Amino acid sequence: MKLDRLRQSFEELAKFTDEGEGINRLAYTETERNAREYMIRQFEDAGLTVRTDYAGNVIARREGMTAELPVVATGSHIDSVYAAGEFDGTAGVLVALEVMRSLEDENIKTEHSMEVIIFACEESSRFGASTLGSKAMSGRLDPAYTRSLTDRNGITLMQAFEENGLDLEEVHLAMRFQDEFKAFVELHIEQGPVLEKQNASIGVVSAIAAPVRFHVHVGGTADHSGTTPMDYRHDALLGGAEIALAVEQAALEELEYGTVGTVGVFSIKPGAMNVVPSATEMDVDIRGTNTESRHRVVSALEKAVKEVAEARGLDVWMDAISSEEPVQMDAGIVNEFKAVCEERGVKWLEMPSGAGHDAMNMAAFCPTGMIFVPSKDGLSHNPAEYTSMEELLEGAEVLRAFMLRQAKMI
Amino acid sequence: MKLDRLRQSFEELAKFTDEGEGINRLAYTETERNAREYMIRQFEDAGLTVRTDYAGNVIARREGMTAELPVVATGSHIDSVYAAGEFDGTAGVLVALEVMRSLEDENIKTEHSMEVIIFACEESSRFGASTLGSKAMSGRLDPAYTRSLTDRNGITLMQAFEENGLDLEEVHLAMRFQDEFKAFVELHIEQGPVLEKQNASIGVVSAIAAPVRFHVHVGGTADHSGTTPMDYRHDALLGGAEIALAVEQAALEELEYGTVGTVGVFSIKPGAMNVVPSATEMDVDIRGTNTESRHRVVSALEKAVKEVAEARGLDVWMDAISSEEPVQMDAGIVNEFKAVCEERGVKWLEMPSGAGHDAMNMAAFCPTGMIFVPSKDGLSHNPAEYTSMEELLEGAEVLRAFMLRQAKMI
Repeated sequence: MKLDRLRQSFEELAKFTDEGEGINRLAYTETERNAREYMIRQFEDAGLTVRTDYAGNVIARREGMTAELPVVATGSHIDSVYAAGEFDGTAGVLVALEVMRSLEDENIKTEHSMEVIIFACEESSRFGASTLGSKAMSGRLDPAYTRSLTDRNGITLMQAFEENGLDLEEVHLAMRFQDEFKAFVELHIEQGPVLEKQNASIGVVSAIAAPVRFHVHVGGTADHSGTTPMDYRHDALLGGAEIALAVEQAALEELEYGTVGTVGVFSIKPGAMNVVPSATEMDVDIRGTNTESRHRVVSALEKAVKEVAEARGLDVWMDAISSEEPVQMDAGIVNEFKAVCEERGVKWLEMPSGAGHDAMNMAAFCPTGMIFVPSKDGLSHNPAEYTSMEELLEGAEVLRAFMLRQAKMI
Repeated sequence: MKLDRLRQSFEELAKFTDEGEGINRLAYTETERNAREYMIRQFEDAGLTVRTDYAGNVIARREGMTAELPVVATGSHIDSVYAAGEFDGTAGVLVALEVMRSLEDENIKTEHSMEVIIFACEESSRFGASTLGSKAMSGRLDPAYTRSLTDRNGITLMQAFEENGLDLEEVHLAMRFQDEFKAFVELHIEQGPVLEKQNASIGVVSAIAAPVRFHVHVGGTADHSGTTPMDYRHDALLGGAEIALAVEQAALEELEYGTVGTVGVFSIKPGAMNVVPSATEMDVDIRGTNTESRHRVVSALEKAVKEVAEARGLDVWMDAISSEEPVQMDAGIVNEFKAVCEERGVKWLEMPSGAGHDAMNMAAFCPTGMIFVPSKDGLSHNPAEYTSMEELLEGAEVLRAFMLRQAKMI
């Protein structure tokens, strides 16, 4: 495989971005559509047959010798969050492209067909809903839910589908048969600091931590900030502040289990210099691969909500937004990735994925695995996100070796 | 004086409002201009001579017997915040109108002339700058500053002046001579809960608490909320939360001095469910009439900023936005108000004003005083703001008695 060609792929794809800091290639936008069309040409040039399904997933297929055998698939996504970096998602797609190009260069044949899938709308940034493409492909998409989705400009998912020549009413047709797949594996950047700190090249993912998410509303009284004595106040910001700190404290106590708790959304009303805040709206995201540990953090949140409401005379309630169970990766695939790493003398770590991925949906559908490559400083969803070409190439070698084993090189 | 006529004044003036909850009569808008013109007709009908000055202040004059004697003035404002109530500012103007009408009804003559002033742009809601009219009249308006002011729609103060037939370049001509005034007094709703809780009718204001205001920036790192272990994070929201709680704690320790500290503006970036907050921007407002007490709260804020930066590895800095000194009311006027209340058998309290008022600017200019009438539940800047007509009439009686003493009834 060729490092320069891989680098050029990243440089070319990075050109598809809307204005703003870093990469802005939101799902189902014109810019993302152009990027998808560019990728389709690359896969075709590498000798693959490409189709786009009813959800906008791109499926690039390299035929094996025995057409009726199930496929060995890999893939990730090329849509991005706002002000993203160049590697989240794209790493898994461009590394797979390089693998396919190398197989073409060497004229390698396999028994099983291989596929590279570019999943549509992995990021929740535009419509507040993530991994739509892999949900559709694995038959886990709720039609009523998708019809309710709208972006920040009021454009519905239905309209966005139309702009892409798709029909949301037909999205269920994107579902595939489980027996089409022998395996699905995703290469992704770690998005965390562990591989770099441990000086390891490959993370073999054991399980994907699932988030449980809550919306918390804190209601107080909008009093005048100059004329309301401190002991007469019902300040919603301060109540929210205490709840956020309680979530942090509870998660810190679960360090050994790797459970994390984050308040990423926190806005107050009315937000004026001279008014005591009357409301705080906050979203809490709690994740872990250990269900009990995660539950302890949720309990601490519930306790904080109750205590803050009582102590401050605030009206506080919380709503579960979503609750997903942690997903185990296929044990056979995990072992095969380890074996490949050992053979190649690559330092690897078995580790959980803290972030959600398309592999989470595919895991409920077919034997699934993931590998990570390092993220510099653990940064992701950030223009400073970085993985070196050498690290990506190492990931490509492991992915290629794994796929050739699975697809049975002739 | 007539309660029904007073009630009708409030009902009539409340009709001048833009769309939205409660009263929306922002400074220098067409709606506020129409309200001003309506008030001018009311004063003219009550026998006063009315002019509008170079800042848009309305000056309604009831001539005394001796034209060269300095005037006894009262007044307040009729512009409002967004979603305001009916009493903030308007109470002082409509009560003064009722006083003037009663003097006309009874054909009462005074040695000194009297004035009712409707100050322009008391609220900062439109241009982010408060008490522009009284600043102009007292010669405290900074020309460079006023030229920089813009509302949320991008309309400059200069354009707003033009729409009102005014020229911002001539606003300095609104300044009057100090010796034109014998006294200025303002009746206002308390905007706090103290009079109601203490069952008192009149608050005689001893001093106006001045705010010292800071912008605090908390800078952290935008990490992925799923993949960044709790002990690797630099969460700007949690740093901001600790600072806000420290301000509250410090102000609670100053309860006996009445010093208050509020974080009314608090916004985070990027504000996404799956990203650790990278920045918090917060505005802190600390007020008191006791300079030392206020200083202790400021010191606690500075200490919290330092400690949070160190403990969390955050980049925190604070900027003073404004710092004003508390303003004492004229001792002679305070005593005269108390004497009037005693004579009338009205329960009064001497108290500080936590909010800023036009009287603050006038106090640097001529002998100045203020009285408060009760605010139900202490609510203000809120559609539920309420003072009963009986309470307002009691305020009118005290104001009238005071003004007749000062202006020397013949």
